[in-house]
Amino acid sequence: MSIENHQKTENEWTPLQRDLLLEVRKNSSRAVMFHQAISDRLGLNATDHKCLDYLLSSGPVTAGRLAELTGLTTGAVTNVIDRLEKAGYIVRDKDPNDRRRVVVKPVPEKVSAISPLFQSILEKTIRIIDSYTEQEQTAILDFLRRCNDMTLEEMNRWK
Amino acid sequence: MSIENHQKTENEWTPLQRDLLLEVRKNSSRAVMFHQAISDRLGLNATDHKCLDYLLSSGPVTAGRLAELTGLTTGAVTNVIDRLEKAGYIVRDKDPNDRRRVVVKPVPEKVSAISPLFQSILEKTIRIIDSYTEQEQTAILDFLRRCNDMTLEEMNRWK
Repeated sequence: MSIENHQKTENEWTPLQRDLLLEVRKNSSRAVMFHQAISDRLGLNATDHKCLDYLLSSGPVTAGRLAELTGLTTGAVTNVIDRLEKAGYIVRDKDPNDRRRVVVKPVPEKVSAISPLFQSILEKTIRIIDSYTEQEQTAILDFLRRCNDMTLEEMNRWK
Repeated sequence: MSIENHQKTENEWTPLQRDLLLEVRKNSSRAVMFHQAISDRLGLNATDHKCLDYLLSSGPVTAGRLAELTGLTTGAVTNVIDRLEKAGYIVRDKDPNDRRRVVVKPVPEKVSAISPLFQSILEKTIRIIDSYTEQEQTAILDFLRRCNDMTLEEMNRWK
């Protein structure tokens, strides 16, 4: 087996690597549960709520673009958009730059009710970040970025 | 304002801290989207699938205990259990140690179909972890642990 193809087996992991892998998995579970709890309060499921969050960062986009941003299939995204529209969080509208295209956009008065729910967790996250050295913060940022990019690539391979 | 109560305002963050906070948020979104994509393939929603994952780690537990582990309310957990039971992933059964209690447990032949979906992402995560020094891995582990614990505390405060 050549070096570049060598994949560590479970026996070769250090206890630290094992703990880290477990914590990455816990982190992912925690995120899903957290967004479910938030969504229960909003009457949405976790995926709908998170797609709305993507939409708030991106501004008005087509359904196809939202599928690219989230990594979901266009079929799944269409269902999400239907549910969000029904719940009043978004509207479908003609693209002002190209009247033949339909974009989805958030309804400001409806989405403004969401951010207070995140306030306390945001403040605590900032305090945690603040307790690390610049060098440690750089490693954490790099790690999260690479995991996020890799996960999106994996998801796009499934489509 | 006393030092211990001082909360950094957005203007006081360094660009690095700002990037890290953004990446933490992206990480959380990515986790929700990833589990939605997996769940679409399993015919479950992201929360149901993740609750099943908790159940696989914990072994047979009561609905109350599953609520504690996940941070969801008992009401929300009951709905999750109903859906997972209907889809054939779990069964309700009497606790062998206390016949008056009902526990939920996974159905092995049904859940064994899930793990191959995670194989590639697991291998890539290990390669990413492996590229950091022990000191960096320690900082990343500590950061994730503190974020996970803090999030669960926040969720339990809402109940």
